Amino acid sequence: MTVEQAVSLVTAADEEAKKACKRRWDSIAKPLNSLGKLESYLIKIAGMTGTSAISLEKKALVVMCADNGVVEEGVTQTGQEVTAIVSENFLKEQATASIMCRETGTDIFPVDIGIAADTNIINKKIAYGTRNMTKGPAMTREEAEKAIMTGIEMVGELKEKGYKIIATGEMGIGNTTTSSAVVSVLTGLPVENVTGRGAGLSTEGLGRKINAISRAIKINRPDPEDGIDVLSKVGGFDLAGLAGVFLGGAVHKVPVVIDGFISAAAALAAVRICPKAREYMLASHVSKEPAAAMLLEKLELEAALHCDMCLGEGTGAVALMPLLNLACAVYNGMSTFQDINVEEYKPLA
Amino acid sequence: MTVEQAVSLVTAADEEAKKACKRRWDSIAKPLNSLGKLESYLIKIAGMTGTSAISLEKKALVVMCADNGVVEEGVTQTGQEVTAIVSENFLKEQATASIMCRETGTDIFPVDIGIAADTNIINKKIAYGTRNMTKGPAMTREEAEKAIMTGIEMVGELKEKGYKIIATGEMGIGNTTTSSAVVSVLTGLPVENVTGRGAGLSTEGLGRKINAISRAIKINRPDPEDGIDVLSKVGGFDLAGLAGVFLGGAVHKVPVVIDGFISAAAALAAVRICPKAREYMLASHVSKEPAAAMLLEKLELEAALHCDMCLGEGTGAVALMPLLNLACAVYNGMSTFQDINVEEYKPLA
Repeated sequence: MTVEQAVSLVTAADEEAKKACKRRWDSIAKPLNSLGKLESYLIKIAGMTGTSAISLEKKALVVMCADNGVVEEGVTQTGQEVTAIVSENFLKEQATASIMCRETGTDIFPVDIGIAADTNIINKKIAYGTRNMTKGPAMTREEAEKAIMTGIEMVGELKEKGYKIIATGEMGIGNTTTSSAVVSVLTGLPVENVTGRGAGLSTEGLGRKINAISRAIKINRPDPEDGIDVLSKVGGFDLAGLAGVFLGGAVHKVPVVIDGFISAAAALAAVRICPKAREYMLASHVSKEPAAAMLLEKLELEAALHCDMCLGEGTGAVALMPLLNLACAVYNGMSTFQDINVEEYKPLA
Repeated sequence: MTVEQAVSLVTAADEEAKKACKRRWDSIAKPLNSLGKLESYLIKIAGMTGTSAISLEKKALVVMCADNGVVEEGVTQTGQEVTAIVSENFLKEQATASIMCRETGTDIFPVDIGIAADTNIINKKIAYGTRNMTKGPAMTREEAEKAIMTGIEMVGELKEKGYKIIATGEMGIGNTTTSSAVVSVLTGLPVENVTGRGAGLSTEGLGRKINAISRAIKINRPDPEDGIDVLSKVGGFDLAGLAGVFLGGAVHKVPVVIDGFISAAAALAAVRICPKAREYMLASHVSKEPAAAMLLEKLELEAALHCDMCLGEGTGAVALMPLLNLACAVYNGMSTFQDINVEEYKPLA
C-alpha cells in the first residue's frame, strides 16, 4: 500500500460519539465543564474511536530513532553516537522516557528507523542516517514514503495488540534542526523565528544551525504543499516515521499524542498530507522550544501541560497519560446527579 | 498555642538543600533544565524539607468543608444542603476528588470545620456555618484563630503519620463568594475584577454575588494588613482552615499544594499572616476562575497544569501528584552521565 492509498481510508471523527461522551460528562455530579480539558480530551477520543465507552488501559509510546546527516554542519552540542546509546537505553530503563513509561504503565517501543549504527531495538532501519541536507535531499521520496508507511503500519500492529492510545517520541541528534526546517517550509515563517537552541546550543551554535537550515531549504526547494516532499528533502527518518504514526492514528482510528516541538513538526507534515488526520491528534504539553506554542495553534490543539519541558523522547506525551487516566477514572467511575440525589446544575434565573 | 506563636517558628527554606537538588538534576543524563517545572518543583521541595533526598510516597489531601451564611443572599446556584452531601461522599468515593485520590494513591481527609449540619467526616466543627457577612462579621476573631490552628495542627499530625506532601481542597457552597471577598480586600482590586461565576452562575446571579461581596466589605471594613481580620470578617471556616494548612506547611516544613482559586485565596491570606509561608507552597493548576492566574502571580508561583478546571475539592492539586511522582521517578531512578558513559551537556564553543 502507498501512503496515498492509506490516507484515502481516513474519515472524519464521529460527531455522534462526541455528543454521547459530552452527555455523559454533563450527567456526572459536578459543575458543568468543570474538568475543562480533561473533559475535552475524552470527547475528542470518543470522536476518534467512534464510541463514548472509553478505556485507555493499554498505552504505548513509539519512539522513532534516527540520525541526521546535517550534524556534519556543527548544529548540535553532542555527537551522533549519542543517538544509538540513548536509543538502546530505552529498553534498559536508562532513558528518561522509559522511566516515565514504567511509572505510568506505558509500554515503550523504540524503533531504529535510521540510526547510523546497528542497534538492538525494533529494526525498521531504512538507511544508516540521512544525507546532509545542506548538500542535497536528506533522503529520496521512496525512502520518505517507506518511513511514513512504517509509522502507519506500526499503529495498525499496536491496535491489534490492544493498545488504545499511542504517545509519540523521538531520539535523533540533530532533529530539532530538521524539525525547524520542516516547520519553516510548511508554515512559511522565517527560519530564525522557528529555530531554537535544542539541547542547549550557544549563540554561535544557534547561528550555524539557522544558517544550515537556510542553505538546506535554498538548495532543495521543497514544495510546501507536498508534505512528503518536505519530509524527504529537509526532514529525517524519525520525522517521517512520526508523521506516519499520526497518519496511522487517523487510518486506524487510534488517538495519537503529540509530544513537543519535533513531534508537532511531524504532526504538521501529517496534516499537510491528510488534513483530516488533525482530528486524531491530542496535544500534551507546550515545550520550551520557541515555536512550540505557535505549532499547536496551527494545529488548532490545546495542551494541558505547561511545564517548560524540552527533553524529547516522548516525555511530555507520556506525562499526559496520568491526567488522561484521571479523566477516565472520573468519567467511568463517578456518580451521576441521579445517583447521589442532587439536582443537576442549571444556570440560575 | 496561638497562631502568632505558631508562625513565629517558621524559618526560610533551606538554600543548601535546594542547591544539592539542582546539582543532582544536572548530573542526570538529559539536557540541562529539560524537565522544566518538574525540576523546579523538586528543588522547592528540597528547600522546604531541608534535604535533597526526596520521596513523596505518602500523599494526603485535606478537604476543608464548611457552610457560609452569605448563601442567604442568592449568590449560589445550589442550596447549602449540598455541602454536607458532597462532604460525606468523599469517604464513599462518590466525589470527584476521592476518585482522583484513589487513582493517584493519595489519602483523603475531609474535615467538617463548619458545615451547617452534623456529618460523619473528621469532626473539627467550629460552628454550624458562618454568619451572613453582608450583615456583620462572618465569624469572631477567636473562631478564625481556632480554624487556622485546626489547619496548622492537622499538618503536624499528618507529618507524624508519615505524609510527605499535602494537597489542599475545599467543599462549601458559597465559598467562591467569600474567596473573592478575601482576595479583593487583600489585593485592593475591585470586587468585579476578582469575582467569577463559580459553579455556573447566570449574569444576574453574578451581579447579586458582586453586590453581596461589596456590601460585606463595606459593612465589615476588614484590615488588609491583618490576614486574620480579613478571614474572620469576610472569609469562611474552610478558608481559615486552609490558611492554617498553608501555615502548618511552613511551621512543620511539609510541602502544601495549592488547588484553584479558593485555595489560592487562603494561601494569600496565609502569606499576609506569615510572608515566609510562601516558600512552602506549590502551585498545581491555573483554574478557569478569572482571578486565578493573577493570584498565582501575586504568590510568585507557577503552575504546571493549564486545564481550565474549576471543580474545587482539591481536584487540581491532586492532579499534580502524578506529575510530581514522575519527577521523583526520574530524579531518583535515572542514570547519570557517568553511568551511561556520555559526556555532560555543556554550551558549545
